[in-house]
Amino acid sequence: MTNIDIAKYLLEKKKIVDSAILKYFTHKNPLFQIMYYSVDGGKRIRPILSIASFESCGGSDIDTILPIACGLEFIHTYSLIHDDLPAIDNDDLRRGKASAHKKFGEARAILSGDGLFAYAFELFTEGNGLIREKFAAIKAVSEIIGPKGIVYGQTLDIDEKKTLSPKVLREIHLNKTAKFIAVSVKVGAIMAQSPKNTIDMLYNAGLCLGMLFQYTDDILDVIGEKDKIGKTPGKDIVSGKLTAPSIYGLDGTRFRAQRYAELAKAKFSTLGKNFEIFHALTDFVLNRTY
Amino acid sequence: MTNIDIAKYLLEKKKIVDSAILKYFTHKNPLFQIMYYSVDGGKRIRPILSIASFESCGGSDIDTILPIACGLEFIHTYSLIHDDLPAIDNDDLRRGKASAHKKFGEARAILSGDGLFAYAFELFTEGNGLIREKFAAIKAVSEIIGPKGIVYGQTLDIDEKKTLSPKVLREIHLNKTAKFIAVSVKVGAIMAQSPKNTIDMLYNAGLCLGMLFQYTDDILDVIGEKDKIGKTPGKDIVSGKLTAPSIYGLDGTRFRAQRYAELAKAKFSTLGKNFEIFHALTDFVLNRTY
Repeated sequence: MTNIDIAKYLLEKKKIVDSAILKYFTHKNPLFQIMYYSVDGGKRIRPILSIASFESCGGSDIDTILPIACGLEFIHTYSLIHDDLPAIDNDDLRRGKASAHKKFGEARAILSGDGLFAYAFELFTEGNGLIREKFAAIKAVSEIIGPKGIVYGQTLDIDEKKTLSPKVLREIHLNKTAKFIAVSVKVGAIMAQSPKNTIDMLYNAGLCLGMLFQYTDDILDVIGEKDKIGKTPGKDIVSGKLTAPSIYGLDGTRFRAQRYAELAKAKFSTLGKNFEIFHALTDFVLNRTY
Repeated sequence: MTNIDIAKYLLEKKKIVDSAILKYFTHKNPLFQIMYYSVDGGKRIRPILSIASFESCGGSDIDTILPIACGLEFIHTYSLIHDDLPAIDNDDLRRGKASAHKKFGEARAILSGDGLFAYAFELFTEGNGLIREKFAAIKAVSEIIGPKGIVYGQTLDIDEKKTLSPKVLREIHLNKTAKFIAVSVKVGAIMAQSPKNTIDMLYNAGLCLGMLFQYTDDILDVIGEKDKIGKTPGKDIVSGKLTAPSIYGLDGTRFRAQRYAELAKAKFSTLGKNFEIFHALTDFVLNRTY
């Protein structure tokens, strides 16, 4: 049992991430404002995971990880903006407000997503130090956000010829969500100059945490409250998406989420006491209501 | 006067780029096929510029620059796919065939663009050597393809409140096109481990070449043949875009294109005889019919 006040921890880290993000939006050109609109209001789960990992691995200067943490949030936001587009998921609500295309029109939504994507990589190269580590972080991130990761998962997700196959579901969850959660944990370890073994173990533990994250996301799509999740619940059901509840039912999904949580915690445990925060983070993801 | 057979040079380099690109599309997942559809058929101007710069700067192992050259083409292709979307330029024809959204629908077009974007950065990190140079290349590219470059230029381009202002036109051309052409030249020099001074001079010369490139693009939109340019001519006029001919007329645009060509060649000249290929490349861009 850990004695970490996870709500307090998340709030503290979120504040740090939010103010770091703000510094990247001082440009006057209106595109930055459009980009910031969508960035604003996120839970900052991925940046927080990267910071938690960085600090657990012994990293002390938070400025080492912060630009990368913000970049992760920009990539996450870009993927939300594009997923919400009418041609893809057609979501009007995101982060508790009108989605980008509802607010600014489709053209600017698409372009603001593109802008955030590029801006993330600009942030990854910020500063002059730790080039080897930043390079490794860029490599790790780029490999799992494109056609072998997020974008691949997203194409599977919109595939109309879907059957209720646990195998396909796993492929979607793994690519669309879990790899990105895992790489968020991984880059923290990379930037803390951890040994390869630790980096790999954290990535694997992160995959379980990521699968758990998508399971609870699927559950919240069924039982979540609009005000809390900031998007339209029931959307996946209406659009006939392949989700965990559509295959396993709600109880089956909860059971499997529990198992992923246990698996994640077991994996984080092997890394030792310094990684206790990940137990608390895993429990938070398991029990989250938003 | 140079004695370079530029048509032969371009064809030889295009072949090298095309076969390098092909190697990146051996994956079985259908997303790669959708991505390749749009990549196939390009002139490979940006990759060729990066190779020309690399070789002029004394680089000898072409495999050092090729993954980056291919990545530039992927980024260029992604920007074409997104620009062609109904919400933006609504172009049905690209590279002599149906544009991505016409062929695969909007959702897959958007995602294939996103996939190419991420895949480009994956390529930039390929291999283990020259990390410092690759990092510098990633930094240079990421800075000019996002909200301070291509994406910014594109938002200006779709702005409806446009006046016939030479200043706005220059801002659009510079950001939408010239910076990316210039950075293509720049990364060749970076990967050849050229001194900072050379890199900066090449970037500046590349900006003039890039402005020239957009001027001739605007001219081809007016007088180009559909079969040769592989896209619908007259599109910019119909959509009321701010182009060089809309401000300066066709003759005024030709005059200015000529001036940019002279400026570019003057700048490349200061770099010495090793950069003669850039004179031929500049003349090619000035006189191009496709």
